[in-house]
Parts: sequence; structure tokens; C-alpha cells
Amino acid sequence: METFFSFLEKRIDDCSSLLCVGLDPHIPDLKEPAADSALDFCLYLVKATAPYAAAFKPNAAFFEVFGAEGWTALRQVIDTIHEESNRLGSKIPVILDAKRSDIASTAEAYAKSAFENLGVDCITLSPYLGKDSIEPFIKDQEKGVFLLCKTSNPGSDDVQDLILESGDPLYIHIAKLAQTWNEKNNIGLVVGATHIDAMKRVREAAPGLWFLAPGIGTQGGDLEAALKTGLRKDGHGMLINVSRGLARSENPRKAALELRDQIVNIQLQMKH
Amino acid sequence: METFFSFLEKRIDDCSSLLCVGLDPHIPDLKEPAADSALDFCLYLVKATAPYAAAFKPNAAFFEVFGAEGWTALRQVIDTIHEESNRLGSKIPVILDAKRSDIASTAEAYAKSAFENLGVDCITLSPYLGKDSIEPFIKDQEKGVFLLCKTSNPGSDDVQDLILESGDPLYIHIAKLAQTWNEKNNIGLVVGATHIDAMKRVREAAPGLWFLAPGIGTQGGDLEAALKTGLRKDGHGMLINVSRGLARSENPRKAALELRDQIVNIQLQMKH
Repeated sequence: METFFSFLEKRIDDCSSLLCVGLDPHIPDLKEPAADSALDFCLYLVKATAPYAAAFKPNAAFFEVFGAEGWTALRQVIDTIHEESNRLGSKIPVILDAKRSDIASTAEAYAKSAFENLGVDCITLSPYLGKDSIEPFIKDQEKGVFLLCKTSNPGSDDVQDLILESGDPLYIHIAKLAQTWNEKNNIGLVVGATHIDAMKRVREAAPGLWFLAPGIGTQGGDLEAALKTGLRKDGHGMLINVSRGLARSENPRKAALELRDQIVNIQLQMKH
Repeated sequence: METFFSFLEKRIDDCSSLLCVGLDPHIPDLKEPAADSALDFCLYLVKATAPYAAAFKPNAAFFEVFGAEGWTALRQVIDTIHEESNRLGSKIPVILDAKRSDIASTAEAYAKSAFENLGVDCITLSPYLGKDSIEPFIKDQEKGVFLLCKTSNPGSDDVQDLILESGDPLYIHIAKLAQTWNEKNNIGLVVGATHIDAMKRVREAAPGLWFLAPGIGTQGGDLEAALKTGLRKDGHGMLINVSRGLARSENPRKAALELRDQIVNIQLQMKH
């Protein structure tokens, strides 16, 4: 059965990379605070890093902030990723980082917007509204979601670390729910690389799920610790997201290649 | 000190109404599945109901689904609400139902998009990422947020009703957090009118906070029970959201007036 994660694994086999390239054209990094500049920023990064990208992750906020023009730019970024995929002969999945959450027909509208109109393959969602808010996004097994589990920000403790009467912190319960909801192999978890102890617990609670791990680089997460903690026993199961670390480097292609190779080396060490 | 809720209370005094008019141009209710039709749908509803609207609540999903054109339509809807406010000589607050949640510079981009670019006064947010994800939205006291607490969908039980080691369900803990975070009188709670027992508990936990209550009408919530349970002792403190109940009526102005009067009658009964 082909599912979102089987497509992702195919791409990872093609490029030997667990690197997810975050496309976050936030205003201080742009030549001008305008949709055109955001588009240029992203197209440059997409073309530079595509050979080593297991996935691309544009963040909706940085396009939404430019209104209708931003929305058009987001669509163009996604179209360009599809063109790069065709050029490389290997489909690079696009994960829309949107952290949406809504109910019934509203969730269906968000799913239609992301999967049909923008043409992405996967979306990040908040789990607070429960399973019926997730269902419109997972009914097509070829499309996937990453549910927020333990996020990389300091304030993630406020709610995600609350202890339930079962003794589990909330984020562990979310990981277990995601595992039971994952009937079609298209649900993963967002687990920040800034919280290694939490990542260890999530991996124990959900040994088979894919993680999307932000927080490496600017936010202070350690690449080696994250991989050694979060990878599944098969050496897969985690996308390492890097955004500013690539965007701000002098040569993003070289930086992506180096990161790809660092990750491969750690994977190899772990096999021995 | 003028804050989002003091502006809302001023508007409520002007129109004697606790009615929040939801602007949900979802595709089955449109003449054609296009941004133009969504715009027409909303402008008709705004002009018909403005005299009795304490607030308007456009839902971002139903505009986002039309891409860049949808985003332009949303902006036009908000501009039209501002024009109606000027015509009536009474500012009607606009609440963007977006249920966003993100961190740091990303949350700042969403706040800029909503408050500066679209020009709304308030936004709905998911609390799962913690206080630092809320802060960019509440730093200006004249702008407000409603945090998801207990939502109106059946699946809200999955996460919101989890029992913490303190004995509280999660949604009660969120209500208490919101109360401690509400230093500037600009944080309220989304509490579905479909869960009257939960609403009672939230009102006990957060006696002073404003509620935004969806779920009356199509979703089955009972207006009288909701008001008697959710209103504060001062007879204020709750916006009753109605969307399809107005949009699908033959005469939305008459339907809004009737709803306004039903609410006023129940408020009066409660005073005696």
C-alpha cells in the first residue's frame, strides 16, 4: 500500500538524506518586506538544496503575512519544488507547516486548500481538537500529517508537560493517541530537537512513528543527540528540519550537502 | 485602560446584543465555489445583520480555500465591516476565527497578518504551544484573543477532557491558565454551547473571563441553557456565535433581530 510515508521513504532512498529544508522567509532575512522577496528567497533555497532535501517545509505564516500576494508566492514555491522533483526524477514531498486545527467542514476546507489547491503532500496540525479534527486530513493515505507533540519552544512546557492522572505527560499521551490513529501509515509527530529527554520518551511510547524534528541550529538543538535519540531502530523515522542554518549560509547547497553527510555519518556510527 | 474587551463591551452597550455573527462561506452554501461568491455571501450577511451584531467572526479556512482570491475577499469583508461600523457610528469588533498556533517569529508573523494587514481586532488561538505562542497576540491590549478551551465538536473529548493529576480535566486547566495570563483584559475562551456541563465548570474556574460560544443551532446547542450557564453574574461575559442559522434564514436581518431579542429576554429573566 502506498502511503505518505512510503513516498517519503522512497525519496530518502533516492537522496540518502533525512534533511527537511524549512522555507521560512521571515522579514528580517528578506531584501524587502514583500511577497516578491519572499518568493526569491525561497526559490533560491529550493534550487540550491533540492538534491539533498528529503522534504521541503514552507511555513504558511511567512506567506500569509503578505496577504493575497503571499498566497500566490506560496503556490509558486510549491510549483517550483514540483519542477525540481521532475528535473531530479525523484518526487520531493512538501510539508506545509500550518499547525491548523478546526472542526468538521472547516477542517475539510483547510485540507482542500492544502492538498488540492496548494498541492502539498503533508501538513502540520495541532491535536487539541481531537481525532475528528484530524480525519479530513488523513482519509487519503497518500497525504500525511505531523501532529504537534512536543514542540521546540521554551513555553511548550506550559501545556504539553502537564501530568495526567495516568502518570504520563500530555505529550506522551498525544504520541500514544497518534499511534492508535495511524491506521493508514500517514501520521507522524512534531518533536523538538531542543528537548532530548522528551524525545527519548516519545520514541519509547511510539517506536514506529515518523518524527519531524525542528530546533537544530539557531534554537540550540544538537544534531547528534537528536539522531541518536529519535531515530528508529531501522535508522529511519526522523526528518531533521533546518531553516535559518541553510538560508543564512554563504553557500546553501554546500551547507545542505554537509548536513546530509553529517547525518549519514551518525547513522553509520549507530549501525556499528 | 481601554482594552479589547472594553471595546467589545462598548459595542454591546450600543446594540444591546450578545450575538456574534459567524461568516462561514462554506462551499455548499455558495452559488458557485469561488471567491466572488464567498464575498457576495458575506457582504449580504454583514449588511443585513450589522445593526444587531456585537461582533463578526469570519473563519479563515473558508477564504484560504480560494487561495489568493480568497485572501483578497477576506480583506474586503473586513473592510466592509469597518464601513458598516462607521455608518452605524459604533465600532463592531472583528474576530478572525483562525485557531492559529506557532512559536516566536512565526507567531509574530500571524499576529501581524491578522492585526496589521487584515485589520481584525481579535483572533482565536490554540493553547497547545503554551504562553510564549500567545504573547505576540496579546502584547497590544487593544487586540484580543479567544483561546480554545472546550470546543463544540464531539471529538473535543479526546484531548480536552483528559484528567490531570490535579483532578482537573485539561480544559479546566487551560481556563485557569488563561485567567492568570489575562493581565491586560484581552484573553477570552472558546467554550462550545454543545457541552453545558463543561461550560458550567469553566465558568466556575474562570468567573471573569469572556466566552465565545459556538454550537447554537445546527450543532444542537440550546440558547437558553448556554446563556443561563455561561453568562457572568453581571449579565455579560459571553458572545453567542451563530453562522448557518442566520445565513440560511430567508431574512437574516429579521433572524438576527429575533435572536438578539431572545437573548435579551433570557438576560432579563436572569435578573429577576
